[in-house]
Amino acid sequence: MQIKQIVLKSRPNGVPTEANFAIEEISLSNLQAGEVHLKGLYYSVDPYMRGRMNDAKSYTPPFQINQPISGGAVAEVIESKDENFKKGDIVTGMLPWANETIINTKGLQKIDVTIAPASYYLGILGMPGLTAYFGLIDIAKPQSGETVVVSGAAGAVGIIVGQIAKIYGCHVVGIAGSDEKIALLKDKFGFDQGINYKTEKNLAQAIADSCPKGVDIYFDNVGGEISDAVVKNINFHARITLCGQISLYNLKEIPVGPRLQPMLLTRSVLMQGFIIGNYQKRFSEGIKELSQWVKEGKLTYTETIIEGFENLPKALIGLFSGDNSGKMIVKL
Amino acid sequence: MQIKQIVLKSRPNGVPTEANFAIEEISLSNLQAGEVHLKGLYYSVDPYMRGRMNDAKSYTPPFQINQPISGGAVAEVIESKDENFKKGDIVTGMLPWANETIINTKGLQKIDVTIAPASYYLGILGMPGLTAYFGLIDIAKPQSGETVVVSGAAGAVGIIVGQIAKIYGCHVVGIAGSDEKIALLKDKFGFDQGINYKTEKNLAQAIADSCPKGVDIYFDNVGGEISDAVVKNINFHARITLCGQISLYNLKEIPVGPRLQPMLLTRSVLMQGFIIGNYQKRFSEGIKELSQWVKEGKLTYTETIIEGFENLPKALIGLFSGDNSGKMIVKL
Repeated sequence: MQIKQIVLKSRPNGVPTEANFAIEEISLSNLQAGEVHLKGLYYSVDPYMRGRMNDAKSYTPPFQINQPISGGAVAEVIESKDENFKKGDIVTGMLPWANETIINTKGLQKIDVTIAPASYYLGILGMPGLTAYFGLIDIAKPQSGETVVVSGAAGAVGIIVGQIAKIYGCHVVGIAGSDEKIALLKDKFGFDQGINYKTEKNLAQAIADSCPKGVDIYFDNVGGEISDAVVKNINFHARITLCGQISLYNLKEIPVGPRLQPMLLTRSVLMQGFIIGNYQKRFSEGIKELSQWVKEGKLTYTETIIEGFENLPKALIGLFSGDNSGKMIVKL
Repeated sequence: MQIKQIVLKSRPNGVPTEANFAIEEISLSNLQAGEVHLKGLYYSVDPYMRGRMNDAKSYTPPFQINQPISGGAVAEVIESKDENFKKGDIVTGMLPWANETIINTKGLQKIDVTIAPASYYLGILGMPGLTAYFGLIDIAKPQSGETVVVSGAAGAVGIIVGQIAKIYGCHVVGIAGSDEKIALLKDKFGFDQGINYKTEKNLAQAIADSCPKGVDIYFDNVGGEISDAVVKNINFHARITLCGQISLYNLKEIPVGPRLQPMLLTRSVLMQGFIIGNYQKRFSEGIKELSQWVKEGKLTYTETIIEGFENLPKALIGLFSGDNSGKMIVKL
């Protein structure tokens, strides 16, 4: 049986292009004991995947040339040789970019689509939701009345961070790259203020104006000059959660910027890098809390869903030009 | 009665010079209730004092022009109008740079010179010792078998950090600026390795060679390019204690350097700035533990003692050219 998969054809030099990917037809092997045959439903594209396109040691191994890209996905079981999975089950896990696949069930989780739509398990009830949850609650430890600034605020993680910070009683300011996104943050997701970094002439001043009591928590998804502007407004005993550095992922060398340490020192600031894998043992705690907030209507959510398997590379590339509001998903 | 005091004559432009200070004779006021008349014994000069010479908001207010410099000091009570202090008591506190002074007793602590020499209360049993203790134990949380790198290792804080890390069973590497200091670190203070950053051509490689298992804890007293070289060798889940940035204190603008956040993020590193004032409520815990280690001979200590009140400015300036080994003290 022939299926389609998308492989890494070449490593990008800066921003990825469609030429770095190729669609191939291959034959599926036979189903073995302990395996399931899956049909893809939804595929997640995420900023961290850019790092895996480089041939560099990081917290996840690099994609291999001529091997399929893989990422978070939701799929339906169409045939099973594992008694714990039956035809019709909906599962999530790290899957190859293929319209169908045969895979060992280790690492697959069945999901409950009566709680939320299947695609939510790639977003608010998946890695982005858990990233927002633990990065804010466990690292930044928000207190009622504090001021929280989120960069990449209209992204999959950012919109959830802002809403959780509101649940905790914080003053929440989002930084994003278009007036449409700013309107969405304020009108749909309850952010108190929004700053369009592309049109704001003096970003540090705009942050000062939006944060009259200074910045107690900075949830950083982007890095670079946006972060420089936030750090200028950082309060004593502030916490900076380093979650993403999307502004730097496509650079070929480590860029220079103002040294942060004197400011972090004199203001007793904590800066903590993390990846969601550090919290694996606490995922069920996070999903439980997030599900509850979704049920209670305290967390709303938005997805940018692009249809068509062949659009996966384009969707991933689009993350770096800010094409998405909320979670970027490809529907097969 | 005429006494001598040293005032800030002008704010330094870069490295301080003796011209920024002036010695004056003034009259002492009369002793009031709740005050003591003190004769200075030992005065501490510390890198953080450079910050107070600028007219900039920080965690301690700036020194005022034509007003005396003040800092940690040990003094003897020669007259008292507070029943809790009597003639002959030895006290420590923040005192003006004056050979004698009349001061309110609030903020003075009596010290026990049977445990350790009086000057130790400006060093191993004072701010530098407490800074080393809480910065290492509370922020970096050393585990036996981990690798600890200390910059400014031969300074007042550095020599104590290295010895406490050895008590905790760590592999300890010190970075300092002369072969004499490196020899002292290894021979007197039990550091496993020392690196002379002034003669080492490839500092990052030297650190890699001295830390075959990478760097788990970096206790940073200096900042700048030395820190860049350490961060290149930082391990997953490492902790960086930001204690000082002496290499940057005399610069007029915030210098640029490689952006750290991508490395801190992908390796889940914690960076925490702190000042010792944050731990005020736990000082007695720290002094108790440090005293015990001194008594047991587990902590040794060295001071550079310069004699003569008029040498206070020179001693402070000398910190920035690395004139000291261990704690720099002026004896009156």
